Order: sequence, then structure tokens, then C-alpha cells
Amino acid sequence: MLLKVKSLKFVAGRPVAIISRRTARALSVYVGERIRLKNRKEMLAIVDISKGILKENEIALSQEILDEMKISEGYAVEVNAAPRPKSAEHILEKLDGKELDYQSLHEIAQDIVNNALTEAEIAYFISGMYIHGMTERETVALTKAMVSTGKSMKIKNAIDKHSIGGVAGNRTTPIVVSICSSTGLVIPKSSSRAITSAAGTADVMECFSRVEFSVQDIKRIIHKANACLVWGGALNLAPADDKIIQVERILGLDPEAQLLASILSKKISIGAKYVLVDIPYGKSAKVEKAHAVLLAKKFEKIGSILGLKIKTILTDGSQPIGRGVGPILEARDVYSVLAQKSDRPLDLEKKSLLLASLILEMMRKTKKGKGLEMARDILESKKALAQFKNIIEAQGGTLKNIENKLKPARFSHTFTSQKSGIVKEISSKKIASIAFSVGCPADKAAGLLLHVHDGFRVKKGDPLVTLYAETREKLGFAKDSFTKLNPVLIK
Amino acid sequence: MLLKVKSLKFVAGRPVAIISRRTARALSVYVGERIRLKNRKEMLAIVDISKGILKENEIALSQEILDEMKISEGYAVEVNAAPRPKSAEHILEKLDGKELDYQSLHEIAQDIVNNALTEAEIAYFISGMYIHGMTERETVALTKAMVSTGKSMKIKNAIDKHSIGGVAGNRTTPIVVSICSSTGLVIPKSSSRAITSAAGTADVMECFSRVEFSVQDIKRIIHKANACLVWGGALNLAPADDKIIQVERILGLDPEAQLLASILSKKISIGAKYVLVDIPYGKSAKVEKAHAVLLAKKFEKIGSILGLKIKTILTDGSQPIGRGVGPILEARDVYSVLAQKSDRPLDLEKKSLLLASLILEMMRKTKKGKGLEMARDILESKKALAQFKNIIEAQGGTLKNIENKLKPARFSHTFTSQKSGIVKEISSKKIASIAFSVGCPADKAAGLLLHVHDGFRVKKGDPLVTLYAETREKLGFAKDSFTKLNPVLIK
Repeated sequence: MLLKVKSLKFVAGRPVAIISRRTARALSVYVGERIRLKNRKEMLAIVDISKGILKENEIALSQEILDEMKISEGYAVEVNAAPRPKSAEHILEKLDGKELDYQSLHEIAQDIVNNALTEAEIAYFISGMYIHGMTERETVALTKAMVSTGKSMKIKNAIDKHSIGGVAGNRTTPIVVSICSSTGLVIPKSSSRAITSAAGTADVMECFSRVEFSVQDIKRIIHKANACLVWGGALNLAPADDKIIQVERILGLDPEAQLLASILSKKISIGAKYVLVDIPYGKSAKVEKAHAVLLAKKFEKIGSILGLKIKTILTDGSQPIGRGVGPILEARDVYSVLAQKSDRPLDLEKKSLLLASLILEMMRKTKKGKGLEMARDILESKKALAQFKNIIEAQGGTLKNIENKLKPARFSHTFTSQKSGIVKEISSKKIASIAFSVGCPADKAAGLLLHVHDGFRVKKGDPLVTLYAETREKLGFAKDSFTKLNPVLIK
Repeated sequence: MLLKVKSLKFVAGRPVAIISRRTARALSVYVGERIRLKNRKEMLAIVDISKGILKENEIALSQEILDEMKISEGYAVEVNAAPRPKSAEHILEKLDGKELDYQSLHEIAQDIVNNALTEAEIAYFISGMYIHGMTERETVALTKAMVSTGKSMKIKNAIDKHSIGGVAGNRTTPIVVSICSSTGLVIPKSSSRAITSAAGTADVMECFSRVEFSVQDIKRIIHKANACLVWGGALNLAPADDKIIQVERILGLDPEAQLLASILSKKISIGAKYVLVDIPYGKSAKVEKAHAVLLAKKFEKIGSILGLKIKTILTDGSQPIGRGVGPILEARDVYSVLAQKSDRPLDLEKKSLLLASLILEMMRKTKKGKGLEMARDILESKKALAQFKNIIEAQGGTLKNIENKLKPARFSHTFTSQKSGIVKEISSKKIASIAFSVGCPADKAAGLLLHVHDGFRVKKGDPLVTLYAETREKLGFAKDSFTKLNPVLIK
């Protein structure tokens, strides 16, 4: 059917075409289904149906489509109902519990990247993975499919580290990267922004320098500084994974096969050959200890099939690490460890040294058993700080006057202990929820400062947690949230 | 966050709000997530993210929202990230294999009706039903939840019939309704339009009269004619079901619990107390015989829990019924049976009489075993035709000159047998697919005319199927499809 393009000047974040109800009926398509548009170029679009605004011979296209097809108001496009893509059949197979092969998974990943699969179809795919799981062979195939449908950085012999997350304030990455890359190791570290947590490593790094770069820029940064600490979101590395995660988030799902494939595909895409995976376990972390052990084995096994050398480390994830929670407050922690300030958070330093030591030993920068000593030397001698400065400067930032720049937000409130006793539990989940109430991660200077950790002995009236907020309203909101959730258990 | 409304004059078929990437980040929402809008009225909307068109303090709202909230360009709305609705937690429970109670299912149905659940979330719900199934208790609760979140017609002691479908040309409903309602039985029949088939009963009835009416109109039609034959889509009876079906269609899923709840909720909403359910079985029908037997038991059991008196009948669904496939061609079949033309399709007549006899016996219009005789009398004496005329006229149509109006499309092609032999199989699925290629159901006069049925003896050169199309192009397209699929097997 030939339709005339009308421009309603709208953008939808994905290719959307609006047609009248009659036209939809004539094409036998419903809201959320696909049509194929053809002018000089062909493109798939998702259908929305209008009531009243469009004539039967008109079609309104989102800006994404107009740009991509290089057409505008008044152009004619040939419109047909697009047959259900073959990948949808494979999704149905997965729902029915079948094992998918590489070709099928590649079709799914490719169609996700091309916007040929709707969010509902991706949700069906995730449901199949979530309920039936995936075999080792399938997980490997999914990882490869996600890599091959995206860009690759091809940085040789690169090293990467990854934490599966879930622990508030756990900002070891900038410290570990600085220690290890100061020895000449190449660490092209791309990180995420916060999704459900108070801050992602990219949010924290943004307090020091820019974090959004092109692949070309990143290569230049690494050439200068051996390492980078950037946001991975715009690099188009394994983009199918990004879209799947977006649909998982809707219900907060995280099927294990997808977790493995997600992490490994990003590492392979960036060119990493050696990867250290930190798996925090415990109450309020993502996994319990028994599960962490199994997950570690899977990482190593599947990684080795994929040609990666993976080292896993199980760490205590039962409580937040460091003092600050929120971009600027965590940046302060990172800086104080690197600068070896006297009031630095020693738990964050200890965990960073452990992770760095494992990388140094894995990469044979020192003998087995000597990594910790080497890492400590690098940190204490401020070589790590100097290397962090290199990275920041290569990313267009500066450490000049940095302590004044990293100021927490203006409005604050300190909660004190209402009794004497011992701190028995601090819940990362509750802390993350309060951080969200106080405006994290959008308000960079907002967050929480933890004055205590598990096992601390407190007296009535001792400070427990200080909240920082950009406005009085948000502070009030977060105070309510704190009172309701009571994240610090004293007994 | 307070944002200024910008009107981009777009409609999305659902409430959609477009914001800039920065604003989305500040609100911590992603494409496809929900925000709550507040002016004088509150409303939920799904987020799209724009690149470049909107300022940070602006929000573009779809026409659905502007109408519903009675606001326009320049108004200020308070915008917040909407928490995940509680029903999403219940969907997660269903994915985890738990049994849901009435309250949980009611929350899901209500949120579907309110557009508070996205298509991805509905897909997760369907996946849970599809993979884990539903208990009898759950199916009953789902049916009740879908009824209570929609409108009810409250027509007392009404009778309904339903076929679970899948058989091409199976247009018994207008004939059965005419026979039975001529005896004074009240049959408020609402039907669907074609989804994946060549024509729905509503598409066929539209060849005789209007089929889109308000609840009030329908009551008036039934008052006049004891029965109606209308489209059910706009009546808001069990609307959660309509939305679920829309998301099921994306993958062609039809979980059994949803099939049961869908049919029963529509019957209860329309006020039916007695229901005849036709379950065609066999190759290329929806179910095999063993499954049909189980399904029949479930219909009767669950129906009785819900206070319905349900009679089921298993019928042979192995081949198409009648001669025509497509709205006008099926309407011709219906009319020729009612008018008792000499060339009427006898298989359609036979099945219609069987179904009518069961209703007449169930409603005690005659003794057990005498229903067929009574139905035949009504049909042969043209009382059924007179009653069909009543219904059509009450719906604003006329049978005057009807045979001239029911003309098949202009371009045609007849496929003949390439060998002598016996017709072994005619696939309803393949016929439906060819009908789709030829333009059904949008092109009312397009379709297929079957010259043979299973068991017919044919000689080389005998006509098998004639295709009708509105344009030469569509005819060519359908011919290709016919040749490829080869729907008539001769041995």
C-alpha cells in the first residue's frame, strides 16, 4: 500500500510509524506489530494507531525513520505488513524449552539490534531463559551472537575486571585500574551508569572527567595512559545485550545465562583476554555463597571455551564498602584512598588491594603470593595516584583543586543511634533505596555517608548515617525513607 | 519535577510521554518505563526518549493523555517516576511458578485495563501462564478478574455459542443463531473480526448490515429481534482479555488457561447463562482429538464453577467447511443455506443443524433426540431466513437484492487438478494463509471458492479452487502462494 508521509515531528527512541485505524485494518496489523517501509531504503517500524489525526492514505513516521530513510513530509512510501521475523520462531522454541543453536541466537541478537523485535518479544525470550535456563553450549553461543552483532575494539592482550555488583559504595575499579595500569598493563575499562544502584563507576568517574567517548577517542586515551575509565553505553559493544537488559529491568529479572553472556560479551568486544571477576556474596548481595561458588565455576568454564582467561574471586558482600554512597561521596572515597589520606576508608582500600594483587599475579608482574605487597607499594608510593592523574588528564579532566570540587550536597541530616549496642547489619539494598530517594544518581552530590560498619560498637547518640540532598524536599523524602527502612540494625 | 507540556500532535494508541534524555536520566527512567503525570488529574504514561527536539523542562504528551487530562500546550505537569505497580510483583510470582489468587489476578487485569502494565510485562505474564499453566482455581479467578474489570451487558438468561476456531469457512453462527432465536430464545451474539483467519463472523455479518453498536443499541436490537450478530470489540466486555490477546498474537501463543478465561469472561460479561462450545479437532485444527476431550471437560467444569451451563461438542475440524473462504464468499454460503438454494453447501448446513439441535434440546424447546428434526423444520420452512431478516433489519441492513450485492472480487483464477485421484486432505491453515495473500479480511470480496472436499474423486483438469482478488497484483501474489503451499492433496 502506498502512503504519504506526514511529519508530526516526534521521536520515539525506536522506529515508530503511526497509521489510521482503517489503514491498520487494511494492512491487517495491530498496535505493536511491524510494518516494512520502502522508499529508496527499506526499514522496519513498529505500528501505533491514531484516532482521527491521520487520513487513510497517510503515515506519520518518527524522526528516527525520517533520518535513516532520508525522507520527509510529502514523500511516498510503500508499506506492507512485515512477516513475523524468523527469530520470533526461535523465541517460541526457547519458550517451549528447546536448546537454541548459534545460528538461531544470532538471528535473535541481530533482530534485536535492528529493532525488528518488539519489547514484548524480547520479554518472551527473557522468560524462556529465566524459566528454562540455558545450557553451557547455549550460553557460549549467546555470548558469541551478542559480540558478532556489535562493534569490537580490538585492543590486544587487554585486561579487564568486573564485579557482578549489588554492594553499595563498592567503588574499587578506579583504584584497581590505577594500581595495575601503572605497571604497564593495558586496561580499557568501560563501566555502566547506575541502573538500580546509587552510582555506577561511570557516574563516579564523571566527577573527575568526561566519560563519554568514541571508540577512536578511547584508543587515543589508552595510547596515552595504558588505561581508561569510561562509560560503555554509547560504544555499541554487544548492543543486543543493552536492549535485553533494558527489558529485564522492567521486572527486575536477571537470568544467569544472560548475566554470564552480558559480562563476557562486553569483555570480548573490548578486546580483553584476561578478566578478573569479583563475585560479592551474602545477605543483600546478588547471590548467596553456594550460588557464588557455582557461578564462579561457570564463569571460568564458559570463559575458557570463549578463549578468555578468567580468574574469579568471592568476596564478602554482606555490607556496604567504603563510607560514601552516591557519585561524589564515592569519588571522595576513591580519591582519599589513592591520595593515602589519613581518614581514608580502609575497607575499600583493603578490597582494592586484594583485587589488584590478583591481577598483578595473574599477569605475572610478580610472583604468586607477592601481589599484595606489590599493590601496596604502588599505592603507598602514590604511583597509583600519579597513574589515576594520567588517566583523568587523558580524559580531559584534572585533579587540580579536586577536594574542593567534590563537595557533598547542601542539605544534610545525620541519624544517630537510639541505643547503645553493636552494629549487626547494614543492608546494601535498603541503602540503595534511600540513595534513590535522596536523588542519586542524577544528583551527583547527593547520597549517604556511613559512619559505622558491621561490628562497630556504638553508644546512644553516636552518628550512624548522614544524608545529603540538593533540596530540602528531597532530604525530607529521604529521611522518611530512612526511618521506614531502618537500614542499620543495632543489637 | 515540573515540566511544560509541548504538543507534538501525536497519538500512540496508548498514553505515551516523550522527554529528553537528560530529563529521563534525572527521573531515572528508561524507554518503556512508566511515569506518573499530575495536573488536576493524575495519569500514568509510558516513556519515550527524544534526541534533540525537546528541552530539558519540556514533555510531549500523546493526544490520549491531553484528552484524558484535559490539558494542552503550555500547561505544567508534575512528573515523577512511577513505582513498578504491585501487579508486576504478581507477574514475577507467576514466572516463578506460583499459583496466583483472585486479588493478585484482579490487580493484573485492572492494571492492564488502566495501561499501567507495558506490553513487555503482559508478555511476561503470558509466558508464566504458557510455561507453568494455571490451576482450575486460578483459571476461575482469572475469568472473574477479567469480567469485573470490564462492562457487563446483564441480558437475562441469554444463550451463546462459541467455536474455538481454526477451521476455514466454518460460518455456522449466523445460521445457528437464526434457527434458535426464531423459537424465542435470546442470543446476544458478539463476534470477533478476523485475526489470523480469512474472516471472522463480524467480518461476514458486515456484508449484510452494520456490526458496530453501543451496548444500548444492542439491547434495542435484541428487544426487536431476540438476537443480534454484532462485533464485540468495542463493547469493553472483559477488555483485559483483548489486550492480552493482542500481546499473545505477537508470538502466536494461546495458553489454555487464557483461552478458557477469554471465552468464558466474554460470555459472562454479555449475560449468557447457557453456552454451547464447539471444539473442532483434527489435523490443521487448533487441537487434536485427545486434547479436545480434555478441553471439553475443563470448559464444563470451570463453567459450572462460574455458574454457567456449558455443553460442549467435538466436531471434525480436519478440513474447511462450506465453499467460500473470505467475508463475501462466506456470506454467500450463509445466505444460500438460509434461503435453501439448491446449490447450498450441505456440509455447512449439516454442521449448523447439529449445533442448533443441541441448543434447542439444552433449552428444552423439544425433547432429547428431537432437536435435529426441529432445527431442520425451521430451516426448511424458511422461518430461519425470516428470523435472519429480522436481525439484519434491526441492525439497519436489508436482504433486498442481496445476491447481487454479494459478488466476489473482479479478478479470478481457477486451479485445476493436475492428475486424476481422490482428494485426501485440504489444509485449513494453508487455505487461511492463501486467503491472507489474496487480501482477506480487508478486501471483503476477495477469497477462495473450494470446488472439492475430502474424499471427492477428481479427474485431471477438474476445478479445485478459484481465487478472487481486488487487483491483478494481489491475484498474482495469491497464485504464487497457492502454488508454493499446495493446499489440496490428491492421491
